[in-house]
Amino acid sequence: MHWTVYLSGEIHTDWREVIQTGSEGKALPVRFTGPVTDHAASDDCGVAILGAEAQKFWHDRKGAGINAIRTRTLIERADLVVVRFGTQYKQWNAAFDAGYAAALGKSLIILHPPEHQHALKEIDEAARAVAETPEQVVEILDYVINGVLPG
Amino acid sequence: MHWTVYLSGEIHTDWREVIQTGSEGKALPVRFTGPVTDHAASDDCGVAILGAEAQKFWHDRKGAGINAIRTRTLIERADLVVVRFGTQYKQWNAAFDAGYAAALGKSLIILHPPEHQHALKEIDEAARAVAETPEQVVEILDYVINGVLPG
Amino acid sequence: MHWTVYLSGEIHTDWREVIQTGSEGKALPVRFTGPVTDHAASDDCGVAILGAEAQKFWHDRKGAGINAIRTRTLIERADLVVVRFGTQYKQWNAAFDAGYAAALGKSLIILHPPEHQHALKEIDEAARAVAETPEQVVEILDYVINGVLPG
Amino acid sequence: MHWTVYLSGEIHTDWREVIQTGSEGKALPVRFTGPVTDHAASDDCGVAILGAEAQKFWHDRKGAGINAIRTRTLIERADLVVVRFGTQYKQWNAAFDAGYAAALGKSLIILHPPEHQHALKEIDEAARAVAETPEQVVEILDYVINGVLPG
Amino acid sequence: MHWTVYLSGEIHTDWREVIQTGSEGKALPVRFTGPVTDHAASDDCGVAILGAEAQKFWHDRKGAGINAIRTRTLIERADLVVVRFGTQYKQWNAAFDAGYAAALGKSLIILHPPEHQHALKEIDEAARAVAETPEQVVEILDYVINGVLPG
Amino acid sequence: MHWTVYLSGEIHTDWREVIQTGSEGKALPVRFTGPVTDHAASDDCGVAILGAEAQKFWHDRKGAGINAIRTRTLIERADLVVVRFGTQYKQWNAAFDAGYAAALGKSLIILHPPEHQHALKEIDEAARAVAETPEQVVEILDYVINGVLPG
Amino acid sequence: MHWTVYLSGEIHTDWREVIQTGSEGKALPVRFTGPVTDHAASDDCGVAILGAEAQKFWHDRKGAGINAIRTRTLIERADLVVVRFGTQYKQWNAAFDAGYAAALGKSLIILHPPEHQHALKEIDEAARAVAETPEQVVEILDYVINGVLPG
Amino acid sequence: MHWTVYLSGEIHTDWREVIQTGSEGKALPVRFTGPVTDHAASDDCGVAILGAEAQKFWHDRKGAGINAIRTRTLIERADLVVVRFGTQYKQWNAAFDAGYAAALGKSLIILHPPEHQHALKEIDEAARAVAETPEQVVEILDYVINGVLPG
Repeated sequence: MHWTVYLSGEIHTDWREVIQTGSEGKALPVRFTGPVTDHAASDDCGVAILGAEAQKFWHDRKGAGINAIRTRTLIERADLVVVRFGTQYKQWNAAFDAGYAAALGKSLIILHPPEHQHALKEIDEAARAVAETPEQVVEILDYVINGVLPG
Repeated sequence: MHWTVYLSGEIHTDWREVIQTGSEGKALPVRFTGPVTDHAASDDCGVAILGAEAQKFWHDRKGAGINAIRTRTLIERADLVVVRFGTQYKQWNAAFDAGYAAALGKSLIILHPPEHQHALKEIDEAARAVAETPEQVVEILDYVINGVLPG
Repeated sequence: MHWTVYLSGEIHTDWREVIQTGSEGKALPVRFTGPVTDHAASDDCGVAILGAEAQKFWHDRKGAGINAIRTRTLIERADLVVVRFGTQYKQWNAAFDAGYAAALGKSLIILHPPEHQHALKEIDEAARAVAETPEQVVEILDYVINGVLPG
Repeated sequence: MHWTVYLSGEIHTDWREVIQTGSEGKALPVRFTGPVTDHAASDDCGVAILGAEAQKFWHDRKGAGINAIRTRTLIERADLVVVRFGTQYKQWNAAFDAGYAAALGKSLIILHPPEHQHALKEIDEAARAVAETPEQVVEILDYVINGVLPG
Repeated sequence: MHWTVYLSGEIHTDWREVIQTGSEGKALPVRFTGPVTDHAASDDCGVAILGAEAQKFWHDRKGAGINAIRTRTLIERADLVVVRFGTQYKQWNAAFDAGYAAALGKSLIILHPPEHQHALKEIDEAARAVAETPEQVVEILDYVINGVLPG
Repeated sequence: MHWTVYLSGEIHTDWREVIQTGSEGKALPVRFTGPVTDHAASDDCGVAILGAEAQKFWHDRKGAGINAIRTRTLIERADLVVVRFGTQYKQWNAAFDAGYAAALGKSLIILHPPEHQHALKEIDEAARAVAETPEQVVEILDYVINGVLPG
Repeated sequence: MHWTVYLSGEIHTDWREVIQTGSEGKALPVRFTGPVTDHAASDDCGVAILGAEAQKFWHDRKGAGINAIRTRTLIERADLVVVRFGTQYKQWNAAFDAGYAAALGKSLIILHPPEHQHALKEIDEAARAVAETPEQVVEILDYVINGVLPG
Repeated sequence: MHWTVYLSGEIHTDWREVIQTGSEGKALPVRFTGPVTDHAASDDCGVAILGAEAQKFWHDRKGAGINAIRTRTLIERADLVVVRFGTQYKQWNAAFDAGYAAALGKSLIILHPPEHQHALKEIDEAARAVAETPEQVVEILDYVINGVLPG
């Protein structure tokens, strides 16, 4: 049985590739989805397609609307949502995605470094697992799908 | 991952073909659906199949019921609904479809000429994107699915 | 795009075969489902599998439970539900199925002879189409799926 | 805590009054609702308000639509739906209401004479209780609300 | 039992007052809700509260967002939605409201002059009643709530 | 049409294999899913992947969260849920799964030895069928899918 | 703002009274609901009202159906569900209620002695709080409603 | 008609008081709800009631669970959710609440200083209004409820 896993959040490290490569290495029947991770494209997609805006606020709005077509649709189709919080930036959209997925009843895995534990406590509480490394996410997938534990 | 896109609204120009041809040109994994666009068939399907009516009101009702089997089912199955308002006719069924899709939580793209901006403001507000040309819809699809921007 | 059509109700005439054969003749992409139509098996499945009951009421209850596994599941998966009322028997389970499907928001086609019009008025009102012959149902399917009218 | 109980079905005996009087006698905190039980008004409400129809089919349709405003709204608001099948008439609307309520997840009590047991087996299976007399319905309400058994 | 009725659509005639006054005259237990009907306020609320916009499109967007807080909330709370189409303007927001309410499963009454019958056929089909005068709406309410027919 | 059947509950006898083998013998189009049935892996998956815990309570919590990713997802995807109660252990998670599936509107089959009838009466009442042997479950599947009764 | 709290599970100690008395002592705006806690009445309500059954299985079924009218309705209306596991009996209906409430998205508090921690780990994982004493439940209510911590 | 408005987010300025006082000054029929805003109590409620934890992670988890009973319940009951982002801290729980409310279909107002516009663009896009001051929120409420614009 195939699983669809949405990878939300931080876009400046290679955590998605680590999970995808690790899953392929185990031949897990998982289809990964996620947001557009090209930061510039993501910021400018609205005006690039629909025309320039004089105000940065509406420039952002147009782009956010188009990105939401992708992110909402793919989150709604996912069996499982992994949300990664990195060490930089506000990352409010990651937290928004976590709330959105939680309200839809999706299983959540939150992935973050230990220093975020206190600030993320409400989001961790909504999750079925809290991991620190993308390798742990692969191990969770292998266990959840195949019943296989590492080692 | 395949996307299903319902194309609602205006039936007197070739906007659906422009979107479909454009998407095929980019090999987008999209399945397009929509209403029956043969105006005469759409108007008369009820009485053609289920028998004539003396009253035009019931003639219309019978047809509208059968068309609704198609439109409601396909809107409910769609990931994304594009609603086109042209320059002629009342087009209340297009606006109805937009409201129907919005209440189901579907992503909406509204496509209309600039002169309709004020009259369509409530519907535009419910949309994730407001476009003026069918080519823009193709560009949105390409970005949303592949993360690729035009140009 | 495939359609799944549940054929509920009367089991003593060949109306299901007429619809299925007619649809195959037009190569419609429809998968038909329905209840078990072997009357004796349907009545006795509960006790045949789970053991005899001294009371007819519980004999019936056991069978109805097992039949409900099939009927509820297939109605929930259907895009369209056709309910046929024949000229004999109480047929309360047909009316129950119609109500069940209506509450789930399924499109309904009701199929019955003209003499039932008054008695079925509430159910006809909940339907998108009211037909008198199974051939009309095939024509509706052909129109709804392909936009093709008869003749 | 107040309970709202919808009384669906047969309109030619005084079963609703028996339940209401019995509940008042026990001071049960129940608000009873139900369809319009004036048969003639129920049949003619559509044309009386919205204008005559030449065809009986559409005469009935208009009335059924208006009655559905009441019945659907009140069933949706009910905590519990009681459906009575009498000894006469087709009573397909009663069975439809039972199916409608079942799909909404409402608790159902079915009330019918023993001779209907086989014909109503699918509907009885969807119910939490099957009663033969309106007095039993009052006893169920008293137990469900107050934990009090008869005698 | 109280009913909540949302009155959507046309804002340039006194149809809401006719319905409200008529209902009060019959002491119907109905609470009426609706959009802000002050056209200028409705158009400008966004910029009046949140600051001016250079572009009319965003001026409209800001206002439409605030109006949607009211209209969506009140439609979701309504038992019944009445949508009035007048003789002027595009009235696409009325049709949007009808679609929105239909997808939520609300009972709909559509109110319009006979000349709109063909253009509104899809929306009329989604309704439980189609009226021509506000007085008919009052009569429907009186019947639906009290079982009383006019005359 | 394929069926997905979740097999919940007791993990110390071979009842799942009996059902799967029996279904394969009849070539039933069923995909079976279930929890991880390796007791030790199930107990320790949390700490094995996410790190040791000093407290047994949190050791258990971590594992239960990961197991819930699998069990909740697969129950939500199932057409039918079979819950087996054996003769040993508390088996509260089996009862929890039954309640979870019931609230989602899934068809339930409860499988247990006769001595549990009184203790399981609330759960049996929520089920469409109560069986005593896994062979009976295979017979139910054969009937529900193919309309075929044993013998 | 009033809270409705359903108290499910063990019926042989006075834990419900402790919670209710404690809440009254703090004047908490809470309405408590729960099952019928008279064990004999709960077991026999079906046959006492609807007539004797020769088979204990159906005797139990009739009672379980009537009790479910109460328990399902009240759980669905609750803001918060507390489930108590005592030291005796199977208590499968308590675990069923927990699963049922969890699938409805209700907040859960599980109340049990420490020796049940391992056996209840899946149910504890689904809960927002795991308490050992009814006094702790009162303290949770006081904090959740008033923001007041003990001491 | 009463409105229930949940005030989520920043707890270190008096923005909630400004909104509440302003609404009282206009006699708006609004009931405001929100999280526990005593930071220390909110952090420690879990261990204060349910016992100390050696690990800060589980200390936080216990508290987050109890706070979630309040926040989830009150957000689900709200007609409108206002989320305030201040100038300090991560405020991921505010963003989580916004996502949670958006997925439930609640109307959202986001309140933040202009410097957060880019970082909050996805969340602003999900909102019906973006305000900079609590006074604007009061004006929105006055308009939405009474149709009254400022000045």
